[in-house]
Amino acid sequence: MTQIAVIGAGSCDPELYSAAEAAGARVAEMGAVLLTGGLSGVMEAACKGAKSRGGTTVSIIPFLTGENAYSDIIIRTGLGQARNTVLVQSAGAVVAIGGEYGTLSEIAAALKIGKRVFGYNTWDIKGVQACDSPIDAVIRAVDACCPS
Amino acid sequence: MTQIAVIGAGSCDPELYSAAEAAGARVAEMGAVLLTGGLSGVMEAACKGAKSRGGTTVSIIPFLTGENAYSDIIIRTGLGQARNTVLVQSAGAVVAIGGEYGTLSEIAAALKIGKRVFGYNTWDIKGVQACDSPIDAVIRAVDACCPS
Amino acid sequence: MTQIAVIGAGSCDPELYSAAEAAGARVAEMGAVLLTGGLSGVMEAACKGAKSRGGTTVSIIPFLTGENAYSDIIIRTGLGQARNTVLVQSAGAVVAIGGEYGTLSEIAAALKIGKRVFGYNTWDIKGVQACDSPIDAVIRAVDACCPS
Amino acid sequence: MTQIAVIGAGSCDPELYSAAEAAGARVAEMGAVLLTGGLSGVMEAACKGAKSRGGTTVSIIPFLTGENAYSDIIIRTGLGQARNTVLVQSAGAVVAIGGEYGTLSEIAAALKIGKRVFGYNTWDIKGVQACDSPIDAVIRAVDACCPS
Repeated sequence: MTQIAVIGAGSCDPELYSAAEAAGARVAEMGAVLLTGGLSGVMEAACKGAKSRGGTTVSIIPFLTGENAYSDIIIRTGLGQARNTVLVQSAGAVVAIGGEYGTLSEIAAALKIGKRVFGYNTWDIKGVQACDSPIDAVIRAVDACCPS
Repeated sequence: MTQIAVIGAGSCDPELYSAAEAAGARVAEMGAVLLTGGLSGVMEAACKGAKSRGGTTVSIIPFLTGENAYSDIIIRTGLGQARNTVLVQSAGAVVAIGGEYGTLSEIAAALKIGKRVFGYNTWDIKGVQACDSPIDAVIRAVDACCPS
Repeated sequence: MTQIAVIGAGSCDPELYSAAEAAGARVAEMGAVLLTGGLSGVMEAACKGAKSRGGTTVSIIPFLTGENAYSDIIIRTGLGQARNTVLVQSAGAVVAIGGEYGTLSEIAAALKIGKRVFGYNTWDIKGVQACDSPIDAVIRAVDACCPS
Repeated sequence: MTQIAVIGAGSCDPELYSAAEAAGARVAEMGAVLLTGGLSGVMEAACKGAKSRGGTTVSIIPFLTGENAYSDIIIRTGLGQARNTVLVQSAGAVVAIGGEYGTLSEIAAALKIGKRVFGYNTWDIKGVQACDSPIDAVIRAVDACCPS
Protein backbone atom coordinates (compact mmCIF):
# COMPACT_ATOMS: atom_id res chain seq x y z
CA MET A 1 0.00 0.00 0.00
CA THR A 2 1.13 3.53 -0.61
CA GLN A 3 1.95 5.17 2.70
CA ILE A 4 2.02 8.99 2.81
CA ALA A 5 3.17 10.90 5.87
CA VAL A 6 1.62 14.27 6.64
CA ILE A 7 3.79 16.10 9.15
CA GLY A 8 3.34 19.36 11.02
CA ALA A 9 3.11 20.91 14.44
CA GLY A 10 0.97 19.75 17.35
CA SER A 11 -0.68 23.12 17.53
CA CYS A 12 -1.65 25.26 14.58
CA ASP A 13 -3.98 28.05 13.51
CA PRO A 14 -7.34 27.31 11.85
CA GLU A 15 -5.98 27.93 8.35
CA LEU A 16 -3.27 25.31 8.68
CA TYR A 17 -5.74 22.98 10.37
CA SER A 18 -7.99 23.24 7.32
CA ALA A 19 -5.05 22.75 5.00
CA ALA A 20 -4.03 19.59 6.84
CA GLU A 21 -7.60 18.33 6.80
CA ALA A 22 -7.72 18.79 3.04
CA ALA A 23 -4.41 17.00 2.69
CA GLY A 24 -5.60 14.05 4.73
CA ALA A 25 -8.82 13.84 2.76
CA ARG A 26 -6.90 13.76 -0.48
CA VAL A 27 -4.56 11.04 0.77
CA ALA A 28 -7.60 8.88 1.44
CA GLU A 29 -9.26 9.74 -1.87
CA MET A 30 -6.13 8.63 -3.68
CA GLY A 31 -6.25 5.28 -1.93
CA ALA A 32 -3.15 5.77 0.18
CA VAL A 33 -2.72 5.09 3.87
CA LEU A 34 -2.10 8.19 6.01
CA LEU A 35 0.79 8.15 8.46
CA THR A 36 1.11 10.90 11.05
CA GLY A 37 2.69 11.48 14.42
CA GLY A 38 -0.78 10.90 15.85
CA LEU A 39 -1.09 13.88 18.15
CA SER A 40 -3.09 17.12 17.83
CA GLY A 41 -2.82 20.10 15.48
CA VAL A 42 -1.77 19.28 11.92
CA MET A 43 -1.58 15.59 12.78
CA GLU A 44 -5.13 15.45 14.06
CA ALA A 45 -6.46 17.52 11.18
CA ALA A 46 -4.91 15.22 8.60
CA CYS A 47 -6.34 12.16 10.33
CA LYS A 48 -9.77 13.79 10.54
CA GLY A 49 -9.68 14.57 6.85
CA ALA A 50 -8.68 11.03 5.95
CA LYS A 51 -11.44 9.52 8.06
CA SER A 52 -13.99 11.84 6.44
CA ARG A 53 -13.20 10.04 3.18
CA GLY A 54 -13.13 6.52 4.61
CA GLY A 55 -9.36 6.32 4.67
CA THR A 56 -7.04 4.44 7.00
CA THR A 57 -4.89 6.35 9.49
CA VAL A 58 -1.77 5.14 11.25
CA SER A 59 -0.71 7.20 14.28
CA ILE A 60 2.93 6.76 15.27
CA ILE A 61 2.93 8.41 18.67
CA PRO A 62 5.96 9.39 20.79
CA PHE A 63 4.53 8.13 24.06
CA LEU A 64 2.39 5.16 25.07
CA THR A 65 -0.83 7.18 25.01
CA GLY A 66 -2.14 10.44 23.61
CA GLU A 67 -3.28 9.58 20.10
CA ASN A 68 -5.95 11.73 18.50
CA ALA A 69 -9.52 10.50 18.07
CA TYR A 70 -9.14 9.81 14.35
CA SER A 71 -6.46 7.14 14.72
CA ASP A 72 -7.18 3.68 13.33
CA ILE A 73 -3.91 1.90 13.92
CA ILE A 74 -1.76 3.17 16.75
CA ILE A 75 1.96 2.58 17.07
CA ARG A 76 2.84 3.37 20.67
CA THR A 77 6.56 3.90 20.24
CA GLY A 78 7.47 5.35 23.62
CA LEU A 79 10.54 6.70 21.84
CA GLY A 80 9.94 10.40 22.40
CA GLN A 81 11.36 12.53 19.61
CA ALA A 82 13.09 9.52 18.11
CA ARG A 83 9.73 8.44 16.74
CA ASN A 84 10.11 11.16 14.11
CA THR A 85 12.61 9.06 12.19
CA VAL A 86 10.35 6.02 12.37
CA LEU A 87 7.57 8.06 10.84
CA VAL A 88 9.43 9.44 7.85
CA GLN A 89 11.26 6.19 7.17
CA SER A 90 7.91 4.41 6.96
CA ALA A 91 6.51 6.83 4.39
CA GLY A 92 6.83 6.53 0.64
CA ALA A 93 6.86 10.33 0.52
CA VAL A 94 6.26 13.17 2.95
CA VAL A 95 3.92 16.16 2.97
CA ALA A 96 4.94 18.96 5.36
CA ILE A 97 2.34 21.52 6.39
CA GLY A 98 3.55 24.47 8.42
CA GLY A 99 5.67 23.20 11.22
CA GLU A 100 8.08 24.05 13.98
CA TYR A 101 11.40 22.47 14.88
CA GLY A 102 9.95 18.96 15.21
CA THR A 103 8.74 19.17 11.64
CA LEU A 104 12.12 20.42 10.52
CA SER A 105 13.81 17.45 12.12
CA GLU A 106 11.44 15.17 10.21
CA ILE A 107 12.03 16.98 6.92
CA ALA A 108 15.79 16.64 7.38
CA ALA A 109 15.57 12.99 8.38
CA ALA A 110 13.44 12.29 5.30
CA LEU A 111 15.77 14.11 2.91
CA LYS A 112 18.78 12.36 4.40
CA ILE A 113 17.49 8.99 3.24
CA GLY A 114 16.32 10.28 -0.12
CA LYS A 115 12.61 10.53 0.61
CA ARG A 116 10.79 13.21 -1.39
CA VAL A 117 9.29 16.02 0.69
CA PHE A 118 6.48 18.28 -0.56
CA GLY A 119 5.75 21.34 1.51
CA TYR A 120 2.96 23.83 2.05
CA ASN A 121 3.80 26.89 4.13
CA THR A 122 6.70 25.06 5.67
CA TRP A 123 10.48 25.39 6.07
CA ASP A 124 12.35 26.65 3.03
CA ILE A 125 15.06 24.01 2.91
CA LYS A 126 16.93 22.83 -0.18
CA GLY A 127 15.24 19.65 -1.31
CA VAL A 128 11.73 20.52 -0.12
CA GLN A 129 9.36 20.97 -3.08
CA ALA A 130 7.20 23.99 -2.30
CA CYS A 131 3.57 23.46 -3.38
CA ASP A 132 0.73 25.90 -3.98
CA SER A 133 -1.80 23.97 -1.96
CA PRO A 134 -1.92 21.03 0.42
CA ILE A 135 -3.83 19.07 -2.21
CA ASP A 136 -1.14 19.70 -4.78
CA ALA A 137 1.43 18.50 -2.25
CA VAL A 138 -0.44 15.24 -1.71
CA ILE A 139 -0.91 14.61 -5.43
CA ARG A 140 2.79 15.06 -6.02
CA ALA A 141 3.70 12.93 -3.03
CA VAL A 142 1.55 10.01 -4.15
CA ASP A 143 3.00 10.35 -7.63
CA ALA A 144 6.52 10.29 -6.20
CA CYS A 145 5.74 6.96 -4.56
CA CYS A 146 4.24 5.37 -7.63
CA PRO A 147 5.77 6.91 -10.75
CA SER A 148 3.71 6.07 -13.81
CA MET B 1 -9.34 -1.20 16.86
CA THR B 2 -8.12 -4.17 18.80
CA GLN B 3 -4.45 -4.75 18.05
CA ILE B 4 -3.03 -8.21 18.79
CA ALA B 5 0.68 -8.97 18.51
CA VAL B 6 1.77 -12.44 17.48
CA ILE B 7 5.44 -12.89 18.32
CA GLY B 8 7.91 -15.66 17.60
CA ALA B 9 11.16 -16.50 15.89
CA GLY B 10 12.20 -15.58 12.38
CA SER B 11 12.78 -19.22 11.57
CA CYS B 12 10.63 -22.11 12.74
CA ASP B 13 9.67 -25.68 11.92
CA PRO B 14 6.53 -26.48 9.88
CA GLU B 15 4.48 -27.24 12.98
CA LEU B 16 5.06 -23.85 14.53
CA TYR B 17 4.55 -22.23 11.15
CA SER B 18 1.12 -23.84 10.94
CA ALA B 19 0.35 -22.84 14.49
CA ALA B 20 1.24 -19.23 13.75
CA GLU B 21 -0.82 -19.30 10.58
CA ALA B 22 -3.82 -20.50 12.54
CA ALA B 23 -3.26 -17.78 15.11
CA GLY B 24 -3.11 -15.07 12.49
CA ALA B 25 -6.23 -16.40 10.81
CA ARG B 26 -8.11 -16.29 14.09
CA VAL B 27 -6.94 -12.75 14.85
CA ALA B 28 -8.48 -11.69 11.54
CA GLU B 29 -11.66 -13.68 12.09
CA MET B 30 -12.16 -11.94 15.41
CA GLY B 31 -11.91 -8.56 13.74
CA ALA B 32 -8.61 -7.55 15.28
CA VAL B 33 -5.59 -6.04 13.57
CA LEU B 34 -2.51 -8.26 13.55
CA LEU B 35 0.80 -6.76 14.64
CA THR B 36 4.03 -8.65 14.09
CA GLY B 37 7.73 -7.99 13.71
CA GLY B 38 7.14 -8.36 9.99
CA LEU B 39 9.95 -10.75 9.11
CA SER B 40 9.91 -14.47 8.23
CA GLY B 41 9.10 -17.58 10.29
CA VAL B 42 6.34 -17.17 12.87
CA MET B 43 5.88 -13.53 11.86
CA GLU B 44 5.30 -14.38 8.22
CA ALA B 45 3.03 -17.30 9.05
CA ALA B 46 0.80 -15.17 11.24
CA CYS B 47 0.54 -12.51 8.53
CA LYS B 48 -0.23 -15.15 5.92
CA GLY B 49 -2.99 -16.55 8.10
CA ALA B 50 -4.51 -13.14 8.70
CA LYS B 51 -4.50 -12.29 5.00
CA SER B 52 -6.21 -15.62 4.21
CA ARG B 53 -9.15 -14.31 6.22
CA GLY B 54 -9.13 -10.79 4.85
CA GLY B 55 -7.49 -9.29 7.90
CA THR B 56 -5.18 -6.32 8.22
CA THR B 57 -1.50 -6.85 9.05
CA VAL B 58 0.94 -4.33 10.45
CA SER B 59 4.62 -5.25 10.14
CA ILE B 60 6.91 -3.41 12.54
CA ILE B 61 10.28 -4.26 11.07
CA PRO B 62 13.72 -3.70 12.64
CA PHE B 63 15.36 -2.38 9.49
CA LEU B 64 14.22 -0.20 6.61
CA THR B 65 13.44 -3.17 4.37
CA GLY B 66 12.81 -6.89 4.68
CA GLU B 67 9.10 -7.18 5.43
CA ASN B 68 7.32 -10.40 4.47
CA ALA B 69 4.96 -10.57 1.50
CA TYR B 70 1.81 -10.54 3.65
CA SER B 71 2.39 -7.10 5.14
CA ASP B 72 -0.28 -4.43 4.60
CA ILE B 73 1.08 -1.56 6.65
CA ILE B 74 4.81 -1.44 7.18
CA ILE B 75 6.52 0.45 9.97
CA ARG B 76 10.17 0.74 8.94
CA THR B 77 11.65 1.44 12.35
CA GLY B 78 15.35 1.11 11.60
CA LEU B 79 15.71 0.56 15.35
CA GLY B 80 17.17 -2.93 15.27
CA GLN B 81 16.24 -4.95 18.34
CA ALA B 82 14.72 -1.88 19.97
CA ARG B 83 11.73 -2.33 17.71
CA ASN B 84 10.66 -5.21 19.95
CA THR B 85 9.47 -2.79 22.60
CA VAL B 86 7.56 -0.73 20.05
CA LEU B 87 5.76 -3.89 18.95
CA VAL B 88 4.59 -5.08 22.35
CA GLN B 89 3.74 -1.59 23.58
CA SER B 90 1.45 -1.18 20.58
CA ALA B 91 -0.46 -4.38 21.26
CA GLY B 92 -3.52 -4.72 23.43
CA ALA B 93 -2.31 -8.22 24.27
CA VAL B 94 0.42 -10.54 23.05
CA VAL B 95 0.41 -14.11 21.69
CA ALA B 96 3.81 -15.86 21.82
CA ILE B 97 4.38 -18.91 19.63
CA GLY B 98 7.62 -20.79 20.14
CA GLY B 99 10.43 -18.34 20.15
CA GLU B 100 14.08 -17.77 20.85
CA TYR B 101 15.75 -14.99 22.81
CA GLY B 102 14.17 -12.21 20.76
CA THR B 103 10.75 -13.51 21.68
CA LEU B 104 11.76 -13.73 25.32
CA SER B 105 12.82 -10.09 25.28
CA GLU B 106 9.41 -9.19 23.88
CA ILE B 107 7.57 -11.29 26.45
CA ALA B 108 9.51 -9.60 29.26
CA ALA B 109 8.99 -6.13 27.83
CA ALA B 110 5.26 -6.82 27.56
CA LEU B 111 4.93 -8.16 31.10
CA LYS B 112 6.92 -5.22 32.47
CA ILE B 113 4.23 -2.80 31.35
CA GLY B 114 1.37 -5.05 32.40
CA LYS B 115 0.40 -6.41 29.01
CA ARG B 116 -1.15 -9.88 29.07
CA VAL B 117 0.87 -12.58 27.30
CA PHE B 118 -0.64 -15.86 26.08
CA GLY B 119 1.80 -18.53 24.98
CA TYR B 120 1.85 -21.66 22.88
CA ASN B 121 5.00 -23.78 23.08
CA THR B 122 6.95 -20.80 24.31
CA TRP B 123 9.07 -19.72 27.28
CA ASP B 124 7.81 -20.83 30.68
CA ILE B 125 8.01 -17.50 32.45
CA LYS B 126 5.91 -16.38 35.40
CA GLY B 127 3.12 -14.27 33.97
CA VAL B 128 2.83 -16.03 30.63
CA GLN B 129 -0.50 -17.84 30.31
CA ALA B 130 0.20 -21.20 28.70
CA CYS B 131 -2.48 -22.17 26.19
CA ASP B 132 -3.42 -25.51 24.63
CA SER B 133 -3.54 -24.21 21.09
CA PRO B 134 -2.63 -21.08 19.15
CA ILE B 135 -6.33 -20.44 18.58
CA ASP B 136 -7.03 -20.61 22.28
CA ALA B 137 -4.22 -18.13 22.85
CA VAL B 138 -5.72 -15.68 20.37
CA ILE B 139 -9.21 -15.98 21.81
CA ARG B 140 -7.90 -15.26 25.28
CA ALA B 141 -5.75 -12.39 24.03
CA VAL B 142 -8.63 -10.67 22.28
CA ASP B 143 -10.75 -11.17 25.37
CA ALA B 144 -8.02 -9.62 27.52
CA CYS B 145 -8.15 -6.49 25.36
CA CYS B 146 -11.91 -6.17 25.42
CA PRO B 147 -13.27 -7.68 28.62
CA SER B 148 -17.00 -8.18 28.34
CA MET C 1 37.95 0.45 27.09
CA THR C 2 36.20 -2.54 28.54
CA GLN C 3 32.55 -1.70 29.15
CA ILE C 4 30.63 -3.88 31.61
CA ALA C 5 26.90 -3.52 32.13
CA VAL C 6 25.43 -4.25 35.54
CA ILE C 7 21.68 -4.70 35.21
CA GLY C 8 18.93 -5.15 37.78
CA ALA C 9 15.73 -3.69 39.13
CA GLY C 10 15.08 -0.08 40.07
CA SER C 11 14.10 -1.13 43.55
CA CYS C 12 15.74 -3.87 45.58
CA ASP C 13 16.29 -5.10 49.13
CA PRO C 14 19.42 -4.17 51.09
CA GLU C 15 21.13 -7.47 50.32
CA LEU C 16 20.89 -7.01 46.57
CA TYR C 17 21.87 -3.38 46.95
CA SER C 18 25.05 -4.47 48.70
CA ALA C 19 25.68 -7.10 46.07
CA ALA C 20 25.34 -4.54 43.30
CA GLU C 21 27.60 -2.13 45.15
CA ALA C 22 30.27 -4.82 45.40
CA ALA C 23 29.86 -5.57 41.71
CA GLY C 24 30.27 -1.95 40.73
CA ALA C 25 33.33 -1.59 42.95
CA ARG C 26 34.94 -4.60 41.31
CA VAL C 27 34.19 -3.30 37.82
CA ALA C 28 36.12 -0.15 38.72
CA GLU C 29 38.96 -2.05 40.38
CA MET C 30 39.41 -4.08 37.22
CA GLY C 31 39.73 -0.90 35.18
CA ALA C 32 36.51 -1.29 33.27
CA VAL C 33 33.85 1.33 32.64
CA LEU C 34 30.50 0.64 34.30
CA LEU C 35 27.35 0.91 32.22
CA THR C 36 23.95 0.86 33.88
CA GLY C 37 20.42 1.99 33.21
CA GLY C 38 21.22 4.93 35.50
CA LEU C 39 18.21 4.85 37.79
CA SER C 40 17.82 3.71 41.42
CA GLY C 41 18.06 0.28 43.08
CA VAL C 42 20.63 -2.08 41.60
CA MET C 43 21.65 0.55 39.06
CA GLU C 44 22.39 3.16 41.70
CA ALA C 45 24.18 0.70 43.95
CA ALA C 46 26.50 -0.41 41.16
CA CYS C 47 27.31 3.20 40.30
CA LYS C 48 27.94 4.01 43.96
CA GLY C 49 30.31 1.08 44.24
CA ALA C 50 32.21 2.07 41.13
CA LYS C 51 32.59 5.66 42.28
CA SER C 52 33.89 4.46 45.67
CA ARG C 53 36.82 2.99 43.75
CA GLY C 54 37.38 5.95 41.43
CA GLY C 55 35.72 4.30 38.47
CA THR C 56 33.80 5.83 35.59
CA THR C 57 30.04 5.34 35.34
CA VAL C 58 27.85 5.73 32.27
CA SER C 59 24.13 6.02 32.95
CA ILE C 60 21.91 5.19 29.97
CA ILE C 61 18.57 6.47 31.20
CA PRO C 62 15.13 5.86 29.66
CA PHE C 63 13.92 9.42 30.02
CA LEU C 64 15.55 12.84 29.72
CA THR C 65 16.12 13.16 33.48
CA GLY C 66 16.21 10.95 36.54
CA GLU C 67 19.79 9.68 36.70
CA ASN C 68 21.19 8.64 40.05
CA ALA C 69 23.74 10.77 41.91
CA TYR C 70 26.69 8.54 41.02
CA SER C 71 26.45 9.07 37.26
CA ASP C 72 29.47 10.52 35.47
CA ILE C 73 28.37 10.39 31.87
CA ILE C 74 24.66 10.49 31.20
CA ILE C 75 23.00 9.27 28.03
CA ARG C 76 19.52 10.78 28.04
CA THR C 77 17.89 8.42 25.57
CA GLY C 78 14.25 9.38 25.95
CA LEU C 79 13.52 5.95 24.48
CA GLY C 80 11.63 4.46 27.40
CA GLN C 81 12.06 0.71 27.62
CA ALA C 82 13.84 0.64 24.27
CA ARG C 83 16.92 1.95 26.03
CA ASN C 84 17.41 -1.55 27.43
CA THR C 85 18.70 -2.77 24.08
CA VAL C 86 21.06 0.19 23.77
CA LEU C 87 22.51 -0.69 27.16
CA VAL C 88 23.25 -4.35 26.54
CA GLN C 89 24.46 -3.76 23.00
CA SER C 90 27.00 -1.28 24.34
CA ALA C 91 28.42 -3.71 26.88
CA GLY C 92 31.23 -6.15 26.28
CA ALA C 93 29.51 -8.47 28.76
CA VAL C 94 26.59 -8.24 31.17
CA VAL C 95 26.23 -8.87 34.91
CA ALA C 96 22.63 -9.41 36.07
CA ILE C 97 21.83 -8.98 39.75
CA GLY C 98 18.35 -9.93 40.88
CA GLY C 99 15.88 -8.37 38.56
CA GLU C 100 12.30 -8.17 37.43
CA TYR C 101 10.86 -8.22 33.92
CA GLY C 102 12.96 -5.29 32.71
CA THR C 103 16.10 -7.19 33.63
CA LEU C 104 14.79 -10.27 31.86
CA SER C 105 14.24 -8.27 28.69
CA GLU C 106 17.82 -7.07 28.91
CA ILE C 107 19.17 -10.58 29.51
CA ALA C 108 17.27 -11.86 26.49
CA ALA C 109 18.36 -8.97 24.28
CA ALA C 110 21.98 -9.58 25.30
CA LEU C 111 21.85 -13.31 24.64
CA LYS C 112 20.17 -12.77 21.29
CA ILE C 113 23.24 -10.95 20.00
CA GLY C 114 25.68 -13.35 21.59
CA LYS C 115 26.70 -11.25 24.57
CA ARG C 116 27.77 -13.26 27.62
CA VAL C 117 25.55 -12.82 30.68
CA PHE C 118 26.70 -13.64 34.23
CA GLY C 119 24.02 -13.70 36.89
CA TYR C 120 23.71 -13.48 40.63
CA ASN C 121 20.31 -14.31 42.12
CA THR C 122 18.68 -13.59 38.80
CA TRP C 123 16.52 -15.32 36.19
CA ASP C 124 17.35 -18.95 35.48
CA ILE C 125 17.46 -18.77 31.70
CA LYS C 126 19.46 -21.01 29.39
CA GLY C 127 22.62 -19.09 28.53
CA VAL C 128 22.91 -17.15 31.78
CA GLN C 129 26.00 -18.23 33.75
CA ALA C 130 24.97 -18.45 37.39
CA CYS C 131 27.68 -17.13 39.71
CA ASP C 132 28.27 -17.61 43.43
CA SER C 133 28.85 -13.94 44.15
CA PRO C 134 28.51 -10.59 42.40
CA ILE C 135 32.29 -10.28 42.43
CA ASP C 136 32.68 -13.63 40.73
CA ALA C 137 30.19 -12.48 38.10
CA VAL C 138 32.18 -9.34 37.39
CA ILE C 139 35.48 -11.19 37.17
CA ARG C 140 34.03 -13.61 34.67
CA ALA C 141 32.37 -10.82 32.70
CA VAL C 142 35.59 -8.84 32.36
CA ASP C 143 37.38 -12.01 31.35
CA ALA C 144 34.72 -12.72 28.71
CA CYS C 145 35.43 -9.32 27.16
CA CYS C 146 39.18 -9.72 27.13
CA PRO C 147 40.08 -13.39 26.88
CA SER C 148 43.74 -13.88 27.74
CA MET D 1 30.14 16.74 34.02
CA THR D 2 29.54 19.17 31.22
CA GLN D 3 28.68 17.26 28.06
CA ILE D 4 29.12 19.09 24.74
CA ALA D 5 28.01 17.58 21.44
CA VAL D 6 29.91 18.41 18.29
CA ILE D 7 27.82 17.48 15.26
CA GLY D 8 28.56 17.45 11.55
CA ALA D 9 28.73 15.26 8.48
CA GLY D 10 30.47 11.91 8.15
CA SER D 11 32.52 13.24 5.29
CA CYS D 12 33.99 16.73 5.05
CA ASP D 13 36.75 18.72 3.39
CA PRO D 14 40.10 19.33 5.11
CA GLU D 15 39.09 22.80 6.29
CA LEU D 16 36.04 21.56 8.17
CA TYR D 17 38.05 18.62 9.48
CA SER D 18 40.54 21.07 10.97
CA ALA D 19 37.74 23.18 12.37
CA ALA D 20 36.19 20.17 14.05
CA GLU D 21 39.55 19.09 15.41
CA ALA D 22 40.01 22.52 16.95
CA ALA D 23 36.53 22.35 18.43
CA GLY D 24 37.16 18.97 19.99
CA ALA D 25 40.46 20.14 21.41
CA ARG D 26 38.81 23.12 23.02
CA VAL D 27 36.03 20.99 24.52
CA ALA D 28 38.72 18.93 26.25
CA GLU D 29 40.71 21.97 27.34
CA MET D 30 37.61 23.38 28.98
CA GLY D 31 37.15 20.18 30.95
CA ALA D 32 34.00 19.05 29.23
CA VAL D 33 33.20 15.60 27.87
CA LEU D 34 32.84 15.42 24.09
CA LEU D 35 29.79 13.69 22.64
CA THR D 36 29.64 12.89 18.94
CA GLY D 37 27.90 10.50 16.59
CA GLY D 38 31.15 8.53 16.62
CA LEU D 39 31.68 8.01 12.91
CA SER D 40 34.11 9.65 10.44
CA GLY D 41 34.41 13.21 9.09
CA VAL D 42 33.53 15.96 11.54
CA MET D 43 32.77 13.39 14.24
CA GLU D 44 36.19 11.76 13.96
CA ALA D 45 37.99 15.08 13.78
CA ALA D 46 36.35 16.35 16.94
CA CYS D 47 37.24 13.14 18.79
CA LYS D 48 40.81 13.32 17.53
CA GLY D 49 41.11 16.89 18.75
CA ALA D 50 39.71 16.02 22.17
CA LYS D 51 42.10 13.08 22.58
CA SER D 52 45.04 15.31 21.63
CA ARG D 53 44.27 17.28 24.79
CA GLY D 54 43.62 14.31 27.03
CA GLY D 55 39.86 14.67 26.91
CA THR D 56 37.15 12.04 27.15
CA THR D 57 35.10 11.15 24.07
CA VAL D 58 31.72 9.44 23.97
CA SER D 59 30.72 8.03 20.58
CA ILE D 60 26.98 7.44 20.16
CA ILE D 61 26.94 5.37 17.01
CA PRO D 62 23.92 4.45 14.87
CA PHE D 63 24.90 0.82 14.37
CA LEU D 64 26.56 -1.82 16.54
CA THR D 65 30.01 -1.18 15.09
CA GLY D 66 31.83 1.49 13.12
CA GLU D 67 33.13 3.92 15.76
CA ASN D 68 36.18 6.00 14.93
CA ALA D 69 39.57 5.28 16.45
CA TYR D 70 39.39 8.17 18.94
CA SER D 71 36.36 6.87 20.83
CA ASP D 72 36.72 6.22 24.56
CA ILE D 73 33.21 5.25 25.53
CA ILE D 74 31.04 3.76 22.83
CA ILE D 75 27.25 3.68 22.89
CA ARG D 76 26.22 1.10 20.32
CA THR D 77 22.65 2.23 19.80
CA GLY D 78 21.67 0.19 16.76
CA LEU D 79 18.96 2.80 16.28
CA GLY D 80 20.01 4.10 12.88
CA GLN D 81 19.08 7.73 12.38
CA ALA D 82 17.09 7.74 15.60
CA ARG D 83 20.38 7.92 17.48
CA ASN D 84 20.55 11.59 16.47
CA THR D 85 17.95 12.50 19.06
CA VAL D 86 19.77 10.53 21.75
CA LEU D 87 22.91 12.49 20.99
CA VAL D 88 21.48 15.99 21.22
CA GLN D 89 19.28 15.17 24.20
CA SER D 90 22.38 14.03 26.08
CA ALA D 91 24.28 17.25 25.43
CA GLY D 92 24.21 20.35 27.59
CA ALA D 93 24.69 22.37 24.41
CA VAL D 94 25.45 21.63 20.77
CA VAL D 95 28.17 22.81 18.38
CA ALA D 96 27.34 22.29 14.67
CA ILE D 97 30.18 22.36 12.15
CA GLY D 98 29.21 22.25 8.49
CA GLY D 99 26.74 19.50 7.98
CA GLU D 100 24.27 17.89 5.66
CA TYR D 101 20.71 16.76 6.31
CA GLY D 102 21.65 14.53 9.25
CA THR D 103 23.16 17.53 10.99
CA LEU D 104 20.06 19.56 10.24
CA SER D 105 17.88 16.91 11.84
CA GLU D 106 20.06 17.10 14.94
CA ILE D 107 19.96 20.89 15.03
CA ALA D 108 16.18 20.82 14.81
CA ALA D 109 15.83 18.12 17.43
CA ALA D 110 18.07 20.12 19.76
CA LEU D 111 16.19 23.38 19.27
CA LYS D 112 12.87 21.62 19.77
CA ILE D 113 13.78 20.76 23.35
CA GLY D 114 15.36 24.12 24.06
CA LYS D 115 19.01 23.13 23.75
CA ARG D 116 21.33 25.96 22.63
CA VAL D 117 23.01 25.39 19.26
CA PHE D 118 26.17 27.22 18.19
CA GLY D 119 27.15 26.90 14.54
CA TYR D 120 30.20 27.31 12.36
CA ASN D 121 29.61 27.18 8.61
CA THR D 122 26.39 25.32 9.16
CA TRP D 123 22.67 25.63 8.39
CA ASP D 124 21.22 29.12 8.75
CA ILE D 125 18.21 28.25 10.86
CA LYS D 126 16.43 30.54 13.30
CA GLY D 127 17.77 29.70 16.73
CA VAL D 128 21.26 28.66 15.65
CA GLN D 129 23.88 31.10 16.96
CA ALA D 130 26.36 31.66 14.15
CA CYS D 131 29.95 31.85 15.41
CA ASP D 132 33.13 33.21 13.85
CA SER D 133 35.21 30.17 14.67
CA PRO D 134 34.77 26.65 15.97
CA ILE D 135 36.58 27.65 19.13
CA ASP D 136 34.21 30.53 19.71
CA ALA D 137 31.33 28.11 19.25
CA VAL D 138 32.71 25.76 21.89
CA ILE D 139 33.37 28.56 24.38
CA ARG D 140 29.81 29.79 24.01
CA ALA D 141 28.40 26.27 24.23
CA VAL D 142 30.23 25.50 27.46
CA ASP D 143 29.11 28.83 28.85
CA ALA D 144 25.52 28.04 27.91
CA CYS D 145 25.71 24.85 29.96
CA CYS D 146 27.22 26.48 33.02
CA PRO D 147 26.17 30.13 33.14
CA SER D 148 28.31 32.02 35.60
